Amino acid sequence: MRVIDLIIKKRNNKALTTEEIKWLIDNYTNGNVTDYQMSAFLMAVCFNGLTDRETVDMTLAMRDSGEILDLSSINGIKVDKHSSGGVGDKVSLVLIGIIAALDVPFAKMSGRGLGHTGGTIDKLESIPGFNTDLTIDEFIENVNSIGVAIAGQTSELAPADKKLYALRDVTGTVDEVSLIASSIMSKKLASGCDKIVLDVTVGSGAFMKNPREAMILSKKMVDIGKSCGKETVAVLTNMDEPLGNSVGNALEVVEAIRTLKGYGPADLLEVVYAIGAQMLILAKKANTVDEAVSLMKATIDNGSAYNKFIEFVERQGGDTSYIRNYDPLITPSIIREVKAESSGYVQKIDGTLIGHASLILGGGREELTDEIDPAVGIVVNKKVADKVKTGQVLAFIYANDEKNVDKAYKEIVSAYTISEREISRPKMILNVIK
Amino acid sequence: MRVIDLIIKKRNNKALTTEEIKWLIDNYTNGNVTDYQMSAFLMAVCFNGLTDRETVDMTLAMRDSGEILDLSSINGIKVDKHSSGGVGDKVSLVLIGIIAALDVPFAKMSGRGLGHTGGTIDKLESIPGFNTDLTIDEFIENVNSIGVAIAGQTSELAPADKKLYALRDVTGTVDEVSLIASSIMSKKLASGCDKIVLDVTVGSGAFMKNPREAMILSKKMVDIGKSCGKETVAVLTNMDEPLGNSVGNALEVVEAIRTLKGYGPADLLEVVYAIGAQMLILAKKANTVDEAVSLMKATIDNGSAYNKFIEFVERQGGDTSYIRNYDPLITPSIIREVKAESSGYVQKIDGTLIGHASLILGGGREELTDEIDPAVGIVVNKKVADKVKTGQVLAFIYANDEKNVDKAYKEIVSAYTISEREISRPKMILNVIK
Repeated sequence: MRVIDLIIKKRNNKALTTEEIKWLIDNYTNGNVTDYQMSAFLMAVCFNGLTDRETVDMTLAMRDSGEILDLSSINGIKVDKHSSGGVGDKVSLVLIGIIAALDVPFAKMSGRGLGHTGGTIDKLESIPGFNTDLTIDEFIENVNSIGVAIAGQTSELAPADKKLYALRDVTGTVDEVSLIASSIMSKKLASGCDKIVLDVTVGSGAFMKNPREAMILSKKMVDIGKSCGKETVAVLTNMDEPLGNSVGNALEVVEAIRTLKGYGPADLLEVVYAIGAQMLILAKKANTVDEAVSLMKATIDNGSAYNKFIEFVERQGGDTSYIRNYDPLITPSIIREVKAESSGYVQKIDGTLIGHASLILGGGREELTDEIDPAVGIVVNKKVADKVKTGQVLAFIYANDEKNVDKAYKEIVSAYTISEREISRPKMILNVIK
Repeated sequence: MRVIDLIIKKRNNKALTTEEIKWLIDNYTNGNVTDYQMSAFLMAVCFNGLTDRETVDMTLAMRDSGEILDLSSINGIKVDKHSSGGVGDKVSLVLIGIIAALDVPFAKMSGRGLGHTGGTIDKLESIPGFNTDLTIDEFIENVNSIGVAIAGQTSELAPADKKLYALRDVTGTVDEVSLIASSIMSKKLASGCDKIVLDVTVGSGAFMKNPREAMILSKKMVDIGKSCGKETVAVLTNMDEPLGNSVGNALEVVEAIRTLKGYGPADLLEVVYAIGAQMLILAKKANTVDEAVSLMKATIDNGSAYNKFIEFVERQGGDTSYIRNYDPLITPSIIREVKAESSGYVQKIDGTLIGHASLILGGGREELTDEIDPAVGIVVNKKVADKVKTGQVLAFIYANDEKNVDKAYKEIVSAYTISEREISRPKMILNVIK
């Protein structure tokens, strides 16, 4: 087999065979296929796509390029939850407490943040002492004893995807739907779960800006999961403004704690319940969404979700005094108010600009090696559909370095669109694809 | 400027600016842009093409990536002649004698053969002693004193094209018309000529198999030449069977000598006159094709073209006794007849298969570092439209190694299509584009 023949085949819009895709991925992973040949192939895929069968073959070849976790010693049905990421997305943090409180195992490998979106691992590490660097044995042991564990992704999972993603990132070949779908699903399939719930975020604060493209991506991923014997459900959720009111690592942990204590913002709760319901149904803990939501609400009302979160933090080495009294987590040296320059109704809050403001403040990473400041971020005071008067506070900037504040201020002001037109609150759940 | 933005721009079918193309080519040549980014860009070009303006920008950026020859000290209008290559293409060899005999300077940088087509430099080097390794000063001096010089391409001309071509060759991005046109024209524009005649070969023995694509390529190249201030004419010539009767290095030199002595095959002469006429018109030596052809015929009839060829060989160190008596050049250890297995008329002779047979015999190169055997090749005895009877000789194999002969024999047999249908001789000149 010659790589140039495979490149030309794809350029001519012919489907590669299963053997050809396996050969290509294996030889790219081991270095026999060069980066410059793979990038030409990837660009041809951006134009001609992959068939459904090719996409599954690509996913399996990447899954099989490294270790596949064996979580069979965890009791119960293990449902993995994956989010495409978004600004203010602390859904996983809230679900940790809720799902585990319902005796459904929550065993999650998670990533770090990059660009304008954050990562669950970074957020949890804003709790002093919290350790996400678990061995597989510790990970399994924690889930079996307290029902939940969160660990950083081990680099051995789907190394082909890791290498391919790095190449796509620098060659303008990231946003092709088959490549995105196979990349996400290869890691999920390697992570040893039984079933998968995908939170596919759509809008200005997400990677996918377009609902139609998000639908196509969701269908692809659900089909891949099914083809590989793992029941998969995708929930398309609205990420057209930041989710909830806080953006920033410790700020989001605090908002998750407050949500578990019964003070969660409506939009965040709507997404938490929608994703959680699909997890509980797949785990056979509930038969319907309504039943699942009732179960989840009860864990908040009776304090079991909050208590489970504390137990989880303690088990992973975190100082739980910061959960009980979280003020020291979110006490930066500077808090600046961003004030409205006109009156009316908030029409739009550009999520990417808010995420970028948080990045400017030091709350995120431009490069994977950047250090982050957990205490900084933005508290969104006025959300879409809120009435606002000139001079009222749109948002609070939490900062530790004065020199970044003005720049972040400008980003936040430009993120807001205010006009006289009264509008209704946006719908959070756009679609559920099974 | 960031290369990824340029890749994405082309992927989105937007035209790059002149500055962007210049930046891309300069930074690729000096190694700041990686091969894997450039190959992604090239694949995007294969799908979205380049605009005419981008193609000119690309050509000029590649031309300017290295030395540009200064041939201004050569007297007269210097018309460069370039062929896209073909099986049995000895047109340049014949034109050396004719054009220089008419006191029009013939100053040509030429290439070596690769794949199924040969190169003028290889052919001339089959004459014992012949030297194509001239300095620029020797090259200019030869043209000024005897009217002609042929030298191997110096690697300093258009190094960006050289690097890009090597990348295209291994990434499935060779056959995109803007890339082909800019590659050819960048070298021509760097070679210091005043005007350009392009012999764009079409058919089974050429790189371009399709007349429509050859027309598009020709127009692109003519437009590039004009945009860059160099009058350019393209002649589309038929290369659907080998040109003339001989394929192989020394065999083609001998056919060229015989043509200069008045014994040339009709199809070869037709192409020689068509290309030569455009050269003479551009050089202001003739006003019409008819006038130019009369002048050229006279140089053969009066022996001046043949004498000029001998003078040329002598000046570049070749042993002219081999020109006066060429039999020792074409006396291999084996001559095998390929006989017709049926009777009828020759409908088709696949040029690529004949070229491949010559390659098998050792007359060509698969890699640029391969050694070639100048004495081997094929003499095509029956051409398209010829009547043939079972057992008659279709072709002669000239070989020095018995082990290659059977394989070459099979290629030649399979190259021939014979059927009962009487057909007329193919038209050699398909189009002239100015």
